Amino acid sequence: MSVLVISPGRDPEPWVEALKKEYPGINVYAYPEEHDPEEIEYAISWKHPRGIFKHYPNLKVIASMGAGVDHIICDPEIPKNVVITRIIDDQLSVDISDFVLALVLDHIRNISFHHNLHAWESIQYKRIEEEQIGIMGLGIMGSAVAQSLLKNRFNVSGWSRTPKELPGVNTFCGEKQLEKFLNKSTILICLLPLTPETENILNKEFFKKLPKGAYIINVARGQHLVEHDLLEMIDKGHLSGASLDVFRIEPLPQEHPFWDYPKIKITPHIASITNPHKVVHQLIDNYRRMKEGTELKNTIERKLGY
Amino acid sequence: MSVLVISPGRDPEPWVEALKKEYPGINVYAYPEEHDPEEIEYAISWKHPRGIFKHYPNLKVIASMGAGVDHIICDPEIPKNVVITRIIDDQLSVDISDFVLALVLDHIRNISFHHNLHAWESIQYKRIEEEQIGIMGLGIMGSAVAQSLLKNRFNVSGWSRTPKELPGVNTFCGEKQLEKFLNKSTILICLLPLTPETENILNKEFFKKLPKGAYIINVARGQHLVEHDLLEMIDKGHLSGASLDVFRIEPLPQEHPFWDYPKIKITPHIASITNPHKVVHQLIDNYRRMKEGTELKNTIERKLGY
Repeated sequence: MSVLVISPGRDPEPWVEALKKEYPGINVYAYPEEHDPEEIEYAISWKHPRGIFKHYPNLKVIASMGAGVDHIICDPEIPKNVVITRIIDDQLSVDISDFVLALVLDHIRNISFHHNLHAWESIQYKRIEEEQIGIMGLGIMGSAVAQSLLKNRFNVSGWSRTPKELPGVNTFCGEKQLEKFLNKSTILICLLPLTPETENILNKEFFKKLPKGAYIINVARGQHLVEHDLLEMIDKGHLSGASLDVFRIEPLPQEHPFWDYPKIKITPHIASITNPHKVVHQLIDNYRRMKEGTELKNTIERKLGY
Repeated sequence: MSVLVISPGRDPEPWVEALKKEYPGINVYAYPEEHDPEEIEYAISWKHPRGIFKHYPNLKVIASMGAGVDHIICDPEIPKNVVITRIIDDQLSVDISDFVLALVLDHIRNISFHHNLHAWESIQYKRIEEEQIGIMGLGIMGSAVAQSLLKNRFNVSGWSRTPKELPGVNTFCGEKQLEKFLNKSTILICLLPLTPETENILNKEFFKKLPKGAYIINVARGQHLVEHDLLEMIDKGHLSGASLDVFRIEPLPQEHPFWDYPKIKITPHIASITNPHKVVHQLIDNYRRMKEGTELKNTIERKLGY
């Protein structure tokens, strides 16, 4: 009964070390270290090579290293009986909230704009109270971001698939209320899970429903955004710009047009980075539950995609 | 009995309009509009031409258009009997607090850094709780900035000339406690008034007392900073960078070395911009008080410089 840590392009060692410290004697392999696939029952994974898990006949659990599980679910060859879990960590929500607050304030106070001008020219700023933040996705992350922005005097509304209530937030739900929600949002923050329904949701028709001059912040997944539509709406002056932390292909290829757009601010998927030592107890708790045959925590509904 | 609005390089019209709306029938001249200097008792001023006020024999009051009065006091030819007032406006403190929060978050989450890289390379971020903000100057602005940062979970300490107490802030005062205050400050925010004692306070000896990697934010006056010392301490790697909103010469000359320093973020004195319509009642209230011979509000102590 062993654990596999698999995270191509990310160093697995901090995870192995944290696991061994939390559960001395645990048998852990760091992919691509040599190991017997039959021995593995529990995998801790970030962007695994597609199809690899079908070679693990005794695999019971795949635990995502982060809050998102789309990088697991997108692989159709994962056996149906394998349970998928995600990380739920207050620090992730805090980090993403701080990051979004930074992006929003940078936008309204035109800091990057002035910094990149390399010349003395000031433009009038809008005040916090004049903005209407629209948050899409009101799960743990969306709720935390809403609270952080409310605390800093922003007007906040939110949209989700199913009805949600959040103190201080004007909430909307479903396809029917989307237009009403978008019509007022001067800063649109995407925090949706990636599902077949939300893929490509940030498209031209969607952008047109936002008021002129609206600003887009995507800290969810690159697949939510139709890239060409964003560029077109910025070029036409309908959108004032965007801050993007996630992309369809990561790392964002050096020849991608986003790099040359002064109105697009690119960050390399840094809204929140999981600290293995802070979340290893969750992983070990579920590892124990798996061994005991009791119900796991932080599991996801594969059909819903989150 | 007339009012002169004098603000070379800034449009006086919004001020004239706001004054006339607040006090119909008031006699206002917008410099350099033709007027009889003997008629002027009340001047509303921003960076007046040096020496000009000595030609106004009946001048009683010079009201600054902003929170700072150094641009008035620095003129030695202003008669001693002229009362100087400043603007006290909650919005100014709010604006400066929002602006400082934006700069601090931009710094800790490395947003400008990544944006300017134009390449996919991420660096680890520090969390809010790991920073120790040091605010110099605990007047109205400094207190507001402290409250805003505390609300966002920052550790905040403060330094002022005379002892001050602020809830949640670890306060220090005077020359004796300066070193102790600086030793712990990882982000140093200058909000001091400009006086002979504070001019050039941000110098090499001062910077050396900060921990390695400290970051400087100056939203007070350019004369607080010894520019060469800042560049030297950044070059040596002792300071990690600076956000500067104020400069010795404004606009900052195009040939100034600051423009080419990637670790220096320049903004064109935009931390807070006074809205004439929001503060005109203060100016008119003092105008009435002057006419009635009663004590004015928001006066400054010329000897102290604030």
